[in-house]
Amino acid sequence: MIFLFTDFGAADLYVGQVKTVLLQHAPNVPVIDLLHAAPAFNVKASAHLLAALTAQIPPGSVTLAVVDPGVGGARDAVALNADGSWFVGPDNGLLSVLAARARACEYWRITWRPVEMSASFHGRDLFAPVAAAIAHGEFPAGKAEFSARLRVDFGAADLGEIIYIDHYGNAFTGLRAQGLPRDARIVAGGKWLNYARVFSDAAAGGVFWYENSLGLVELAGNGCSAAEKLELKTGREVGISA
Amino acid sequence: MIFLFTDFGAADLYVGQVKTVLLQHAPNVPVIDLLHAAPAFNVKASAHLLAALTAQIPPGSVTLAVVDPGVGGARDAVALNADGSWFVGPDNGLLSVLAARARACEYWRITWRPVEMSASFHGRDLFAPVAAAIAHGEFPAGKAEFSARLRVDFGAADLGEIIYIDHYGNAFTGLRAQGLPRDARIVAGGKWLNYARVFSDAAAGGVFWYENSLGLVELAGNGCSAAEKLELKTGREVGISA
Amino acid sequence: MIFLFTDFGAADLYVGQVKTVLLQHAPNVPVIDLLHAAPAFNVKASAHLLAALTAQIPPGSVTLAVVDPGVGGARDAVALNADGSWFVGPDNGLLSVLAARARACEYWRITWRPVEMSASFHGRDLFAPVAAAIAHGEFPAGKAEFSARLRVDFGAADLGEIIYIDHYGNAFTGLRAQGLPRDARIVAGGKWLNYARVFSDAAAGGVFWYENSLGLVELAGNGCSAAEKLELKTGREVGISA
Repeated sequence: MIFLFTDFGAADLYVGQVKTVLLQHAPNVPVIDLLHAAPAFNVKASAHLLAALTAQIPPGSVTLAVVDPGVGGARDAVALNADGSWFVGPDNGLLSVLAARARACEYWRITWRPVEMSASFHGRDLFAPVAAAIAHGEFPAGKAEFSARLRVDFGAADLGEIIYIDHYGNAFTGLRAQGLPRDARIVAGGKWLNYARVFSDAAAGGVFWYENSLGLVELAGNGCSAAEKLELKTGREVGISA
Repeated sequence: MIFLFTDFGAADLYVGQVKTVLLQHAPNVPVIDLLHAAPAFNVKASAHLLAALTAQIPPGSVTLAVVDPGVGGARDAVALNADGSWFVGPDNGLLSVLAARARACEYWRITWRPVEMSASFHGRDLFAPVAAAIAHGEFPAGKAEFSARLRVDFGAADLGEIIYIDHYGNAFTGLRAQGLPRDARIVAGGKWLNYARVFSDAAAGGVFWYENSLGLVELAGNGCSAAEKLELKTGREVGISA
Repeated sequence: MIFLFTDFGAADLYVGQVKTVLLQHAPNVPVIDLLHAAPAFNVKASAHLLAALTAQIPPGSVTLAVVDPGVGGARDAVALNADGSWFVGPDNGLLSVLAARARACEYWRITWRPVEMSASFHGRDLFAPVAAAIAHGEFPAGKAEFSARLRVDFGAADLGEIIYIDHYGNAFTGLRAQGLPRDARIVAGGKWLNYARVFSDAAAGGVFWYENSLGLVELAGNGCSAAEKLELKTGREVGISA
């Protein structure tokens, strides 16, 4: 399986072009869209979101991850194997949180370049052929050199920020919920939020925090938009009372 | 084939997780996104929209239907076979309109639970594995008990409301057009609308009603947004003059 | 492979119905969404965008292209083979730019009609079965007659207009960049824009033109929305200084 995690926009004309390349190079490998609405200009938030999603990705698969505002500039292209799963993308920190949290991780700097490569769409021209080659077991032969580490590394620690807001208006934080006591309170947008196990346990129109299905602290509203009520945006700071 | 009908948002990070589970449990079964923009907090409107879409679903397929504001609460999980097609989802009325309109329908209450189940994402953790099992012919062995009926049942009757607004601004009603005389007029947003067979039969910028491709009365504009012109929202009442 | 290029909306309930028909008629042919956000009421802009995307489409594939405000009216349905690739859609100009630019092109007028055809959704009822038949090599037997030309033909020339705005706010023009000197300036929204090779070469917040990954002149911003800064919309005129 090949997973896609990008800021290309689910409704835009970029994903189809990436899939066309994947289908030509790896015809029998299923491709799954994890997310194409990763925060476009916030690589750190995207890195934390991808790290949280990694638990949903079956071992042995390949993830093409592109949030790449510096495309065409000096940043490197990398592939890494974290606990048996492959990740391909820019060396701008995007892959660094999941790498830092893995039990074991190996890194390759991608040296291969296609004959024709656009300046702005490496997802299609560079990362997709490499992801397909990995899915076929043809990597890294002649395409990459082993590397000791990533150049940009955000580390394994949690991020006390809003990293994603879904279409219901629920706000994901970069805080992992495991180990956080249920009487902890979360502060965001100047308001203190209490814990609820699930939406229907909160009052109608009430805002609360809970452990979401990715294991993150999420700020949510029962039948309303938490992001609107608290005036939250991606990148906004959040804190823990405890 | 497995069909998906949800309020998860086509651009959000939920559909990919459901598909990952389906691909792991039912690797060779094609999955088709029917709609991920079902009215999130209006189960009744969603139920009528799903019932209208059911005619497009080939017999023998499985539809995973999730519009589930009460997830994690007391509502049951159900599977039903309506005229040879399977539907899996919450027992909150979502499946009840198509069931009431079917010539024959059988019900099962899903008793199986996964080892790990999030409180908020039963689409991924509960309904997807059950849908995959049905697609493999392994249901209901040990996973469900036969049931006489649904707990929440909206019945077979039409719904005189706007149930969906598409991206062109055309407004679907819960009224079936079959049998409705073409000289009937529809009232919505305080305006009376006449019938037109198709967009190009109406005046440019004109608003009219017609029988849409799902067999429903739809309020539409030729080259304009009917929803904007009539200030329509999902849930808004509509009436028939006749 | 079957490619889809439409204005049906990626998040709406139309694409799934088209794919259901394709899967029933051509079960083993992969389907790729190129774009479902083509400019709905601007067939000319859509035609130029499709022509630019055509270079990404592998030879031998079938593209179902529907931007069809006149559906149900008098316009014809056509299929054409341009340089070895098939295209199916309305004869309203949508296919004419790629046809005019092809080295070789043959035309068929689709005479086949399904037993049941909705007035408003020929993408599902007419074009999808024809595209599936072509993918199976069963076209045009009994389904079409050879034709000398298209009725509506926009020609091969570039279009000095904004033809698409992506979700980053970058604005595609209908001008091909090949052969355009890098010291040319583009005027749009009353502002003159200079060339940059790629985003990271421009000043932060700066607006520039560059050759995008489809070979078109694109007006873009580094970390900002060019469309917002220049108040651009699809259809807005652009000019070249040179």
